[in-house]
This record gives sequence, structure tokens and C-alpha cells, in this order.
Amino acid sequence: MLGYLYPLRTYFVVAGDIEKPNPMTADWVIPLSFNPPLLGVAIGKKRHTRKLIEKQKDFVIAVPTVELLKDVWTAGTLSGSRENKAERMGVTFVESKKVTAPSIKECQANIECKVVKQVETGDHIFFVGEIVNVSHGDGFVDEKPDIKNYKFLMHAFSGKNFTYQSDELIKP
Amino acid sequence: MLGYLYPLRTYFVVAGDIEKPNPMTADWVIPLSFNPPLLGVAIGKKRHTRKLIEKQKDFVIAVPTVELLKDVWTAGTLSGSRENKAERMGVTFVESKKVTAPSIKECQANIECKVVKQVETGDHIFFVGEIVNVSHGDGFVDEKPDIKNYKFLMHAFSGKNFTYQSDELIKP
Repeated sequence: MLGYLYPLRTYFVVAGDIEKPNPMTADWVIPLSFNPPLLGVAIGKKRHTRKLIEKQKDFVIAVPTVELLKDVWTAGTLSGSRENKAERMGVTFVESKKVTAPSIKECQANIECKVVKQVETGDHIFFVGEIVNVSHGDGFVDEKPDIKNYKFLMHAFSGKNFTYQSDELIKP
Repeated sequence: MLGYLYPLRTYFVVAGDIEKPNPMTADWVIPLSFNPPLLGVAIGKKRHTRKLIEKQKDFVIAVPTVELLKDVWTAGTLSGSRENKAERMGVTFVESKKVTAPSIKECQANIECKVVKQVETGDHIFFVGEIVNVSHGDGFVDEKPDIKNYKFLMHAFSGKNFTYQSDELIKP
């Protein structure tokens, strides 16, 4: 019944470290608080990433545009417990400023988070992260996405079905 | 720093009852679990809607398309503690099947939820709801959004700046 919330934005959730980055793909990401700045991500209980984040207590939300669709699909369909996903992808992992989890150079933003709470929600664990640093590219100006020039990736619905936002700005 | 997660989908969160519906607008909505089917919504602590949901323990997430932009803006900018927002809007509130909170006839989906958990997250309260019923229009077929024919509303960034998803389906 979750399909009625789609289409939704798609992001990378990066755990691990610069020696062994572990990226996955997540549509289930949400802002939670302005002050302190918090966001949340829901990760399946059986996922390798869940175990890593529980242990290292930090993660990065990296913001892909449509050019990274193949990497998004790779990160979302392989398991980090069995394969080195980072090696199968075409992106460059770089050190983050304030967390152990690495950032992705080709993403338009890398949002570094430290876990402040985790909550069981059915078959997922919901991690609440405090945003401790953000690095970004030209896709954002004054913390606003440049929707005229960048296509931010969205999952249209389950499976290999993606889209992006329109470049039309509409006003009420 | 939350601007780096935008653009994000925009929804109505409806509380109150059919006699006195209380809709607000929320970008901060997330799927949380397949089994049981759960979703979450973060609502500012000082919001009237927060008090209503805490009391009535249910709410509806209603899915607007671009045609409802003016109503989305009205619901997002007036306070339900001072005004009867429902009367200022052009939509039709109808009874939901399994919760007290009403549904919105003109929305493409109405997702009825019962609160199963609430968590403090900074300046917001995060309500976890179990989905107990969904009613929907032609905007969804087999629980999938029809992105070719419907423009699902998105908040491009803060303020009067909205957009919607592209009608192009892309495959990895």
C-alpha cells in the first residue's frame, strides 16, 4: 500500500569508511527537524547497511541526479554483505568532513549525519541523524535545488522505473 | 540544511472529523514498513494538527495533484487553531472508511492511518501510522502512480515554489 506515496525521491545512503565504502539506495528518507537539523532514513532490518550504521553510528545521504541512474541501480540491488558494491560502481568515494562514512564526489550534495536515535518501525529500522556537515555542487544554490538545470532522481514506482522532477516552477 | 533533500513530494495531512476537518500540508512524509504497512509524518510541535493527532490517534495522508495547488497553499499557511481552514478551501471532505479523520474527494489517494508510535525528533513530533485503508482515483493503477497522465505535486523548495514529476519513465 506504500505505492500510493510514490513517485518519491531516491538517494544513496552511504555507510562503511573510505577503505571500504558501503552504499545502498533508499527512497525512504525524510527531513525531521530544523533545530537541531535532523533527518531520518528507514532501512530494512536484514540489510547489511543497517548493521553497519548501528555499529558506526553515522551515515551520509548522497543526492544523485539522473546521470547516476546505473550506479543507483547497482547500489540498490547488490548486497554489501556478499559483494564489494563500491567496486562495481562508477562513482568516486571521498572522505567526509565530520563522519566516518564516505561521501560520493559525483553527487550534488553529501549530507553527513550522526545517529541520535533509532526506532523500530515494522520490518525496518528508522535511523534519526543529526546533520553535522553538508558539501555540495552547483546543483544547489543558497541551499535550494536548481531544478532548471539538474534532474534530481526519483523512483516512479517499484522496480526499474525512475523519473525526475519537472523544470517548471509553479506558484500558488 | 534540509534544503539539500528537496525537491520533495507534498501531501495533505488531514486530522479532525467530518464535522470539523483540519487539513495541513506536509512535505515530510515517508514509507516505513511493508509488513505491517507503516508510514511516518513529522509535524511541528506547535502545530494544531499535532495536538489533534495526539488525541484522536489517527490521520489521513491525501495525495494532491497540481490542480490542488491553491488548496495546498491555503492548508499550509493558515492555522487550524484560529481559522476553519476547510471552509477556506475548494475541496470536498468525505468520510473515511476506517478512521475518524476525513478524506479529500479531489485527491488521487487517501491513505487512512492509525497511530502506532510517536517519537520526539527535535522541533517536530514524528507520528508512525499503520495504513488501515486506502481509497484512490485513476491516478493510481495497481498501486502504481500514473505519471504519464497525472502531475503529482512537489515542493521545489521553501515558500511558494512548487513543481511536479516529469512524465518520462527512465530505466537503468
